[in-house]
Amino acid sequence: MNEKRHIVSAFDRDLEGIQAQIMKMGGLVEDAILNAALSLETRDEELAMKVRDGDKAIDKLDEMLNEEAARVLALRAPTASDLRVVLSVMRMSANLERMGDLSKNIAKRTTVLVQMQPIGSTTSALRRMAREVQNMLKDALDSYIQRDAALAMDVIERDSDIDQMYNALFREFLTFMMEDPRNITACMHLHFIAKNIERMGDHVTSIAEQVVFLATGKMPDEARVKADRTSLDKGPDLGPEED
Amino acid sequence: MNEKRHIVSAFDRDLEGIQAQIMKMGGLVEDAILNAALSLETRDEELAMKVRDGDKAIDKLDEMLNEEAARVLALRAPTASDLRVVLSVMRMSANLERMGDLSKNIAKRTTVLVQMQPIGSTTSALRRMAREVQNMLKDALDSYIQRDAALAMDVIERDSDIDQMYNALFREFLTFMMEDPRNITACMHLHFIAKNIERMGDHVTSIAEQVVFLATGKMPDEARVKADRTSLDKGPDLGPEED
Repeated sequence: MNEKRHIVSAFDRDLEGIQAQIMKMGGLVEDAILNAALSLETRDEELAMKVRDGDKAIDKLDEMLNEEAARVLALRAPTASDLRVVLSVMRMSANLERMGDLSKNIAKRTTVLVQMQPIGSTTSALRRMAREVQNMLKDALDSYIQRDAALAMDVIERDSDIDQMYNALFREFLTFMMEDPRNITACMHLHFIAKNIERMGDHVTSIAEQVVFLATGKMPDEARVKADRTSLDKGPDLGPEED
Repeated sequence: MNEKRHIVSAFDRDLEGIQAQIMKMGGLVEDAILNAALSLETRDEELAMKVRDGDKAIDKLDEMLNEEAARVLALRAPTASDLRVVLSVMRMSANLERMGDLSKNIAKRTTVLVQMQPIGSTTSALRRMAREVQNMLKDALDSYIQRDAALAMDVIERDSDIDQMYNALFREFLTFMMEDPRNITACMHLHFIAKNIERMGDHVTSIAEQVVFLATGKMPDEARVKADRTSLDKGPDLGPEED
């Protein structure tokens, strides 16, 4: 009995360490999203460079987290819900790492875009979209710490707002390109930035789904939601890239 | 001793089942890639629809594989290299699942593109690119079964060909768009298809990296390769989305 308690608390201690790393990583990714979009809006090359450099720290945390999770699996051999937590954390880390990459990619495109004519007020719209994804991420991480399935479901639902923002922007870029071919190159970059933010929303959704799974033991049924989003045939919407 | 041998062979048997599932999944993804590109080139809506429907089977295998891997982790509590194999298989399954999604997305865009004017011979170039990625995937899966690090490294190196094909196509789409604004919508779809194939190459690379890790215990050093690929500032190249 005593030994059992000892083993349980050692696992809990390991898990606390891993969770602290996930939260730290989440904080860095939140900053990366917002600063990437802000550097684009304010044409701040220095801030863009900071985001590009900052991705190394996120990658490093992902690596450490995977090593630590593998160590816990090997050492503690968790089962049932403990095992689920460790596997979820590994998936969440992968989602955050990709979000870091996408932010870095936005910052790289910013470095190119500052050399070109601005395209309407699209960078402000992109910054609002990024802010929304950042808020979703914040709530997803909170829902994880509190195992709050309702908050996680709320995050999942908000992803359709991001998809709508993306679709509106896509139509705007198309119009700017048709109006003047000289806008094409800049619009291609801006479109990729919008797509990157939209994909970050999908990664946050995936994190929130993990939380629902951890809290309820079931994955949220999202087949219907996804079908609604995939509206390739309804107009100029290019649809989500992956579903 | 006897019991130990019993445990080891039970793990091996589990692993064999998981590996058979990965190979089956890999075969389905190979077909999906090629058929998606073929349906685009030959304007075959029926084949495109088959690819879209076929993604369900790939998703299902990914789900089963994750459940089976979690079961093995809980039941056998593998350590050291056995643990690494199970975790690698889970990552490979995630890569294959994404490749299935990307193929499905190509098939969806095909359904839209058959309604529009063809853009030069770009669909043939896309099919060649897809064929190359399919070959890379085939070799990556072979290298996994044979734990052949040299073959896996070869796959990793071939990804730069895919990136070059993508860059050439990107410039071509840009030219078509500038020539005639009526080409813009079709080119946006075609460009996303090229990008999807390029990202599939990244997923294959990630599978090959897992193989190198399993075979040698070390991740291939790819920092330099990635820096070369990220040539945002060298011209119209939009660079890889994630690195």
